[in-house]
Amino acid sequence: MRDFLPPDVRRREYVVGVIKQVYEHYGFEPLETPAIENIETLLGKYGEEGNQLIFKILKRGVHESTGEADLALRYDLTVPLARVVAEYRDKLPKFFKRYQIQPVWRADRPARGRFREFYQCDVDVLGSRSMLVEAELCGAASEALTRLGIDDFIIRLNHRQALRGVLEAAGVSLAKHETALIALDKLDKIGRDGVCKELSDRGISDESGEDLLDFFGELNSLERPAEIVTRGESDTNEALNAAILGRMVEFVNDNDCGVKGIEELRLIVKFSAAAGFANRIKVDPSLVRGLSYYTGAIMEISVKDLAGSLGGGGRYDNLVGMFLDQDVPACGFSLGMERIIVMMSERELFPAATVSAPADLMVSIWDEDSAADSISLARDLRKAGFRVDLYPDVDKLGKQLKYASSRGIPFVAILGDDERLAGKVSLKDLLSGDQRTLTREAIAQELHRAIAARQAECLKDR
Amino acid sequence: MRDFLPPDVRRREYVVGVIKQVYEHYGFEPLETPAIENIETLLGKYGEEGNQLIFKILKRGVHESTGEADLALRYDLTVPLARVVAEYRDKLPKFFKRYQIQPVWRADRPARGRFREFYQCDVDVLGSRSMLVEAELCGAASEALTRLGIDDFIIRLNHRQALRGVLEAAGVSLAKHETALIALDKLDKIGRDGVCKELSDRGISDESGEDLLDFFGELNSLERPAEIVTRGESDTNEALNAAILGRMVEFVNDNDCGVKGIEELRLIVKFSAAAGFANRIKVDPSLVRGLSYYTGAIMEISVKDLAGSLGGGGRYDNLVGMFLDQDVPACGFSLGMERIIVMMSERELFPAATVSAPADLMVSIWDEDSAADSISLARDLRKAGFRVDLYPDVDKLGKQLKYASSRGIPFVAILGDDERLAGKVSLKDLLSGDQRTLTREAIAQELHRAIAARQAECLKDR
Repeated sequence: MRDFLPPDVRRREYVVGVIKQVYEHYGFEPLETPAIENIETLLGKYGEEGNQLIFKILKRGVHESTGEADLALRYDLTVPLARVVAEYRDKLPKFFKRYQIQPVWRADRPARGRFREFYQCDVDVLGSRSMLVEAELCGAASEALTRLGIDDFIIRLNHRQALRGVLEAAGVSLAKHETALIALDKLDKIGRDGVCKELSDRGISDESGEDLLDFFGELNSLERPAEIVTRGESDTNEALNAAILGRMVEFVNDNDCGVKGIEELRLIVKFSAAAGFANRIKVDPSLVRGLSYYTGAIMEISVKDLAGSLGGGGRYDNLVGMFLDQDVPACGFSLGMERIIVMMSERELFPAATVSAPADLMVSIWDEDSAADSISLARDLRKAGFRVDLYPDVDKLGKQLKYASSRGIPFVAILGDDERLAGKVSLKDLLSGDQRTLTREAIAQELHRAIAARQAECLKDR
Repeated sequence: MRDFLPPDVRRREYVVGVIKQVYEHYGFEPLETPAIENIETLLGKYGEEGNQLIFKILKRGVHESTGEADLALRYDLTVPLARVVAEYRDKLPKFFKRYQIQPVWRADRPARGRFREFYQCDVDVLGSRSMLVEAELCGAASEALTRLGIDDFIIRLNHRQALRGVLEAAGVSLAKHETALIALDKLDKIGRDGVCKELSDRGISDESGEDLLDFFGELNSLERPAEIVTRGESDTNEALNAAILGRMVEFVNDNDCGVKGIEELRLIVKFSAAAGFANRIKVDPSLVRGLSYYTGAIMEISVKDLAGSLGGGGRYDNLVGMFLDQDVPACGFSLGMERIIVMMSERELFPAATVSAPADLMVSIWDEDSAADSISLARDLRKAGFRVDLYPDVDKLGKQLKYASSRGIPFVAILGDDERLAGKVSLKDLLSGDQRTLTREAIAQELHRAIAARQAECLKDR
């Protein structure tokens, strides 16, 4: 668990603000659910390992001593969404497009970039089976990352039914699909021979294994040239996706499930081109993702120099049905906010304004008699729209200036005896050291001018 | 616990946004702490009743079966603040001015306007004993409420040391102060005779009781005329405060503690006048608040037709010392966000924009062939800065228009066969029913014009 001190909060709020704005532009609406859910809502939804990682809350009062838990902390944002859709079906629009940016809790062993409290940033569409939904989700996630300054990512795209078609075409029985995919998922790590052995160990026939490895090997050779086209060359990338889809069609042949899945992939690629981000999409038949949950398209965002992903998602048409006596088609995408923040920090992508001073100006306190004048000056400048800190104690002026400087506050207003007699204020620029005596009215004007000048300089530096 | 559907989230975000902006203008910085604290951090900080209301989290893994709890959910924002200040003392500025707007959890019996998960909205200054701090806190809270449209509140102000002085001057021994205050706190409810009896029951001598009741009764008669001056008549209000402070000074006579407390109240009143909100401050020697915690000034925001308060706070110079081997002076103020939202809803204070449509425009889908064109139009309009929803399914146009209308989306773009042939788009205004065929370029201009016109009308209506 982490405390977020002010500079941390500012950075996080910047990221959340950009993502929210993009999602709102795509017609998504905000949803918030409570941190605490009934324990039955969560248990059994995340597999055996997931059950272990749920934070459980002790019953209260006289029941406390039983050691039983009846409540639990939110583990992700998808199960609460499914509960909400089931619970408020009549109040929600036919197509419910929601985004949700809230913390979730997992009793995981903490590691670098992994925390027990972390924010998820989900966007989902409920109520439609159209592939426009997949395209819109990928488009929104893509635009959010681009706006944050991350531009070297690709969205790997695959499809559960296409995967099933490929496995069936290779003669793997349905019961063995899951185990076969676990082995195939390691192709990058342990190579062809390693996977071949593992498939065999997992009870897949040698013939099926060879067939699959030929297929994926051939696709890999198609994909190699893709690395040079991940930045912007849409046409080349589209041609590559078409080639991969073509190869998949050949392989699954007349397998209905596979054909349907590949046709959906083709539509998503087509819509992505219309939406202007075809260069981001890479059809990748080897993408697996967690299998229990997804029923259709699956996607994952990769960045070249980052192990793991910046986000991912897919279609899950059966989850809401676990809370309701009818199925509601659904598709969602989750951005990994913690990873995005780490990456943006490393790449210094935060604009200067997000690490700005806590105030535009500090009003100093000369002595007890003049404190009321200082307050009144602070009030006027706040009314004029400035963020104004007021030094609280009667201290030596030097100490007050040093304090403002240490906090990065660029200006200090001084109301000494001379200034008060003359009805004026001294404005000290802590960066240049300049000090000018001005009327109270002129102070606001001068501050506006100086702040605008600094901002212009800041923009020039970028 | 509550789910917040999109219109609820929008209202809450509006309130949070206004409060944050005001606090930033006062030089406060944002802090966020984790929802989960070590259980020892929380236990013993909120009294026996508080301990009962803390949500406790079961140990994980093999320890789960012990039924023991090692973690707990955040119960307020003040104890986590004290922990943070103790933990990061070296990284924080000498005067740490922070605001924090996060949920807290209490296993209370739910009631109207009381929830087990609710947001607190705290602002605190650590590191100074100056009364400027109290004045700034009251000023910021006052401005936040005013900006939200609530303008019939007063800030009741009292002081722990002044209270102590009054009780000592009446001859109540220190050990009896708490019990005496519990009785006196009921003056409004059970009247003079009731309190007189209760004081006697609680072991306060009749003489002391009579003395105290004379004192408070006399102040009450001073206060009556105040009701007519709570709206803006600063001078009258200042005169009243001066009269009350004068009466308090007479009563405590040479009691050091009382004299010091009253002097601090006088300073707060003086600074409030300089900051321009003297009309909001009402010195109220009968204000008690939770006693365990506060060491100096205490304040509470009252609204005429609302039982209970919209917020409150005070000075607590000893709390951080519970986590650190040194004391850090501190003073804070908490706005009751849930009550503010209820009041704003009842009074219809939310601006129209916070309950606005989920999108400026919906792009409809004519048929499967034209879907890519619809996506591309949506993309262009989003680029132009509009919030654009895209209908996901191929449905009858009438159904699509009805859907947009039911969601309050004011415009629908239609890309039928004729429009596509002519390279144009039809724009339907759902409010007027008008439909015009425009070039793609003209659409954005027309939308800007129409939205601006609606906004102007909206402002005129207010």
